[in-house]
Amino acid sequence: MDIYTDPAELRRAIRARKFASHTAGQCPGYAQGNLAILPRDYASEFLRFAQMNPKPCPILGMSEPGDPRIPAVGADLDIRTDISRYVVFRDGEPAGDVDDLMQVWRDDLVAFVIGCSFSFEEALKEDGIPVRYVERGHNVSMYRTNVATAEAGRFGGPLVVSMRPMKPAQAIRAIQITSRFPNVHGAPVHFGDPAAIGIRDIGKPDFGDPTEILPGEVPVFWACGVTPQSAIRKARPPLAIAHKPGCMLVTDLRNSQLSVF
Amino acid sequence: MDIYTDPAELRRAIRARKFASHTAGQCPGYAQGNLAILPRDYASEFLRFAQMNPKPCPILGMSEPGDPRIPAVGADLDIRTDISRYVVFRDGEPAGDVDDLMQVWRDDLVAFVIGCSFSFEEALKEDGIPVRYVERGHNVSMYRTNVATAEAGRFGGPLVVSMRPMKPAQAIRAIQITSRFPNVHGAPVHFGDPAAIGIRDIGKPDFGDPTEILPGEVPVFWACGVTPQSAIRKARPPLAIAHKPGCMLVTDLRNSQLSVF
Repeated sequence: MDIYTDPAELRRAIRARKFASHTAGQCPGYAQGNLAILPRDYASEFLRFAQMNPKPCPILGMSEPGDPRIPAVGADLDIRTDISRYVVFRDGEPAGDVDDLMQVWRDDLVAFVIGCSFSFEEALKEDGIPVRYVERGHNVSMYRTNVATAEAGRFGGPLVVSMRPMKPAQAIRAIQITSRFPNVHGAPVHFGDPAAIGIRDIGKPDFGDPTEILPGEVPVFWACGVTPQSAIRKARPPLAIAHKPGCMLVTDLRNSQLSVF
Repeated sequence: MDIYTDPAELRRAIRARKFASHTAGQCPGYAQGNLAILPRDYASEFLRFAQMNPKPCPILGMSEPGDPRIPAVGADLDIRTDISRYVVFRDGEPAGDVDDLMQVWRDDLVAFVIGCSFSFEEALKEDGIPVRYVERGHNVSMYRTNVATAEAGRFGGPLVVSMRPMKPAQAIRAIQITSRFPNVHGAPVHFGDPAAIGIRDIGKPDFGDPTEILPGEVPVFWACGVTPQSAIRKARPPLAIAHKPGCMLVTDLRNSQLSVF
């Protein structure tokens, strides 16, 4: 697989159907984002939901209604074409994948780009903290918790978390590092006993793949960008659009710009 | 007990024998320090030990040989008289307490003021994180670990840690807060399984009192200012002087000045 270094070039390749793969490892140093598109009357409520739940739902940028551009996250970006694969939701349920949104786009749609843990994982790896699911080549383990998000209109539901196992000293360092990234989920929300946040079986994630926890390690839990997708399913808008998991929007924002220190 | 608000006033009261008690709770907002006094030929090695082990041994200030003043930590400070109770060590072993150092002081003595966890505990409490040993009115639990300090000349030995039990979410916040205080022990060195750092029985601290760990809590371990005392005992200098535990040097430094953010 080609590795692109320039986000604008990668987005042009996706737009031209020359790149149709997962974006992990693409454009090192640049932030990748989750996508959520909603009709205008749901979008204002969703924005309030995000404002009230910044850890699982950090907004990196949003469009004007009907406008496919989001200059805050990428020059020359067209949200209808610059992601390699989209999932269309009808009444909150997945209703099929598409390669672009040219047929689906409407004048009242608002696109949200939501921060993603790839950004802080890059900082962890640069600091020498291994991220096991990446090393093992599978998807991160994600779990529904018994922690409720703050509700906003029709949006709400449980906090979803991602889990990365670490030794305690690594977890302390990871808390320091991810605290510097409040716009990409920030510090963990929990570590240790899964039952304390309502996770019954750490070996059976609700989303993604299981991750082995080695002796001497503890599971460390971060608020996860799947939370807003879960909130959208609960709100059941007639139309909603997300990226296909793994096929992220690659932005012009550098991960280092998302660090507050 | 009188609560003093001005460190210089408290030091004058100690000097005049009007105050002879523990200093916990005195001069809120101001940093209190551990004391270590060594002959000049040991002092340079000890300084190197501190430089190599900044987490357990953060130096807030030091004197010139034979000079009882340390203007970096307090105007009008006389290290021979401004602590209410001192312990004199001969060949590394305690050899008696004294109220002042006027009879013991020598031209070759160097005084070190070492940061103390009171500073970050104040920040924890201000953030709403309870510190159990303070609430229960006993001394913090401290343990010898199997983690070796970096040796410098005759100084070395095991890292000593203090332990505070917390819920995981409180521990994450405490890691963020104490990371801002690198000069008063900084972030924890470990949490969770005591055996991982060589602590056999969490209920039996090597120094201080036991602390109850409630259900849902984990022990969180910080590098402790008793580590340099332990290193001094190992080095066995013919003369060394420390403060009596609890009878700290109250400095003119504000805790907020010790915070890096």
